[in-house]
Amino acid sequence: MKPHYCATIVIFGVTGDLSRKKLFPAIYKLAQDKVLDDFAIIGMSFSPVDIPALHAELKKYIKRIDERVWEGMIQRFTHLQMDFSDPGKYPLLKEIIGREEKKHKLCGNRLFYLATLPEHFASITRNMKQAGLASSAAGWSRVVFEKPFGNDIASAKKLNRCIAEVFREEQVYRIDHYLGKELVQSISVLRFTNLVLEPLWNRKHIDHVQIILSEDFGVEKRGKFYEKQGAVRDVVQNHMLQLLALIAMEAPKHLTAQHIRDEKIKVLRSVQSDGLVLGQYAGYRQEMGVTPDSATETFAALKLAIANQRWKGVPFYLLAGKYLREKKTLVYIRFKDAPCLLFEGKCSFLSNELVIMIQPNEGFFLNVNTKTPGKMDIVPVKMDFCHSCVFGPNTPDAYENLLLDVIRGDQSVFIREDEVEESWKIVDKLLKKKHTVHPYAQGEIPQAAKEMMGKDNRAWII
Amino acid sequence: MKPHYCATIVIFGVTGDLSRKKLFPAIYKLAQDKVLDDFAIIGMSFSPVDIPALHAELKKYIKRIDERVWEGMIQRFTHLQMDFSDPGKYPLLKEIIGREEKKHKLCGNRLFYLATLPEHFASITRNMKQAGLASSAAGWSRVVFEKPFGNDIASAKKLNRCIAEVFREEQVYRIDHYLGKELVQSISVLRFTNLVLEPLWNRKHIDHVQIILSEDFGVEKRGKFYEKQGAVRDVVQNHMLQLLALIAMEAPKHLTAQHIRDEKIKVLRSVQSDGLVLGQYAGYRQEMGVTPDSATETFAALKLAIANQRWKGVPFYLLAGKYLREKKTLVYIRFKDAPCLLFEGKCSFLSNELVIMIQPNEGFFLNVNTKTPGKMDIVPVKMDFCHSCVFGPNTPDAYENLLLDVIRGDQSVFIREDEVEESWKIVDKLLKKKHTVHPYAQGEIPQAAKEMMGKDNRAWII
Repeated sequence: MKPHYCATIVIFGVTGDLSRKKLFPAIYKLAQDKVLDDFAIIGMSFSPVDIPALHAELKKYIKRIDERVWEGMIQRFTHLQMDFSDPGKYPLLKEIIGREEKKHKLCGNRLFYLATLPEHFASITRNMKQAGLASSAAGWSRVVFEKPFGNDIASAKKLNRCIAEVFREEQVYRIDHYLGKELVQSISVLRFTNLVLEPLWNRKHIDHVQIILSEDFGVEKRGKFYEKQGAVRDVVQNHMLQLLALIAMEAPKHLTAQHIRDEKIKVLRSVQSDGLVLGQYAGYRQEMGVTPDSATETFAALKLAIANQRWKGVPFYLLAGKYLREKKTLVYIRFKDAPCLLFEGKCSFLSNELVIMIQPNEGFFLNVNTKTPGKMDIVPVKMDFCHSCVFGPNTPDAYENLLLDVIRGDQSVFIREDEVEESWKIVDKLLKKKHTVHPYAQGEIPQAAKEMMGKDNRAWII
Repeated sequence: MKPHYCATIVIFGVTGDLSRKKLFPAIYKLAQDKVLDDFAIIGMSFSPVDIPALHAELKKYIKRIDERVWEGMIQRFTHLQMDFSDPGKYPLLKEIIGREEKKHKLCGNRLFYLATLPEHFASITRNMKQAGLASSAAGWSRVVFEKPFGNDIASAKKLNRCIAEVFREEQVYRIDHYLGKELVQSISVLRFTNLVLEPLWNRKHIDHVQIILSEDFGVEKRGKFYEKQGAVRDVVQNHMLQLLALIAMEAPKHLTAQHIRDEKIKVLRSVQSDGLVLGQYAGYRQEMGVTPDSATETFAALKLAIANQRWKGVPFYLLAGKYLREKKTLVYIRFKDAPCLLFEGKCSFLSNELVIMIQPNEGFFLNVNTKTPGKMDIVPVKMDFCHSCVFGPNTPDAYENLLLDVIRGDQSVFIREDEVEESWKIVDKLLKKKHTVHPYAQGEIPQAAKEMMGKDNRAWII
């Protein structure tokens, strides 16, 4: 039997991209699958809206819609226009929540989703407390934050303190959508249920690791926002350091929130920087919202070390950038060379490579050496498995799982207070020194990034 | 540039199956590829033959024939009818060899192929010596033996002694066609050029190994011959113990004949038997040439141990049989269980498995665990590579390579004197004790063989 859940979902910023493109489709799917049975949605926006137009706009992003399910969902949806920074509006919100819970006979579980610009996080949190919305008499009260979570260690700490005054850490869900449950679990399953991998997963057998997050587009309409962020804050501090932590962490005792987060933070605490190259794509300064002399990086290449028993001496190279050749995210693990003995010194074979693909297609493959039939040529072949052949294309959307995790109270894929701060600590240290921002042509990577690898006799795999 | 070779090929038993189906097609291919440029073939048969009929029969098995190449080959082919056991005929053979070498301006390299019943091996060898055919004044003289090479340790030793009186060991090529160069080299490349395998290839990480040689047919026309052999002598003593040696041996210093054979013999010397189950398929006693109360085994299941540092405690299970469900040859390596910690004791996942397929299709795959999208189910998936996609279907025939190896003087895939004797020692020890021969239905394996595995909490993978 499928479990059923009950919750009142309160969305700050219901007219935004995230809400329309991700949250509503996810809630719809949970309702359609009858996982979320008893619910109400209260969506707030800063500006007034035309309700039918809002409904139509929300409906647009739902695929393969069942009109009956949609109608039922709209009947449980209330819109409220309010200024999030105005404490005077929160009693009304509270009243509406209570009214809807009564009307739909709900259990009093409340999920507050802050799908707003990050500058509202602090005031919303404070205002919720003042209005008595930080806890629910009948059920739980949980709050979800989208990235960016702070802009440096100071702002992240300040925000964490502000949240901590209102919520206990177990009520707080900091989302890194890259880190969907699927990914955390599939990397953990790959690493810890396959005996063929664990004995190799260390400095004795791994030469180096690359984590790549490359995009084939620019800042698009996010110029103004991106200008203040840059690649390191935008994706390295969160997605990439989280990926690094998942790849490098020790086996958690169990696959539960506390154990996973305990292991990730241990890795993050051991991270040291051995190099950073920044870049900016040609044409960035002409983008909308960008200053003409901008020094914001749209590319970052990092060389990190992990100072522990398992990884000492194994470089972790991270590369993130916009307007590169391809859109893809992956983790590349290069094993050490096999000794060249068999062939009396004529060793043309490559080292083994394990690639964990994250985007656009999930999966993994191992490059191994084999012999060409009929001659003594050794060639690398890809040992692959076809993810979509085996499982079909219906991987649940990240947000569907994330929402369900919040409702279930599973924090394992959300970022804990100390993880956020530790990541910022790494990033702040990196950015403290002034770095040249190297220009690069679209589709290329800066020469300096190639040289960073070249010096180590290695090469980027993108 | 391709190397060119020169040789006079002398075939004892030119009208037999081996000669027609394997040797002639192989020589044809070498001639067509211009690898074998200067050559003559002298083919002997016991019975008189009609020459045009023999030519037609030999031509029948050559695929995609180029008439010009074939005509050139026939012009270099001489037939000689002779009684192999009559020493008086060998001077004529010698004379014809000399005449043909002169006629075709050959280099004096001579390859003697004993494609006869094994009972002729000793007399042919002796007669060759007497006629002065054991060496060639101008080039080399090499002799090729087909299996079976002896019937037990005593007969193998006797045959080896007899051969040693005539030839030096480096002139002697004992063929195990299962052990084509392709296989020896591809297993060695897989094992020793992939760093991801070597650290796992030992008692610490491998639970057990299975070597399977199953056939889906019976003795066919070989009843009379098979009756004296049985499965253990027919395939275990040679093919399967050789496969075991290739899988279990230490890395040879180089991939050359001496080093490979030195390592294989070391493994064979460490083999101990921990169990043997014999079987006979229902209907075997009614086969042509088989006695009605035959106790010959058509099935053998063995449990072997290798008493060395690498393998102590890892059972090697061998299974060979006729009239089983499928025709296939493979090596199956089962890794130990990954510790079940992550999921608080609910571990439904399988252990990793590496399968090296030998017949019908060469290749290998690794079964690893991965997560089903959307739920925390762990399922095994096959990491495979498509051998024929990568290399096409044109793997050279084993005999083409084997002949070329003899001509080149590369003994690496041929069985050395001491290897033959060591294998017979293992087999003699196994068969010394009287064993029940369990009847089994076609398509099944004997219950006792299942129990052999069951006692160890394991199962055959066929």
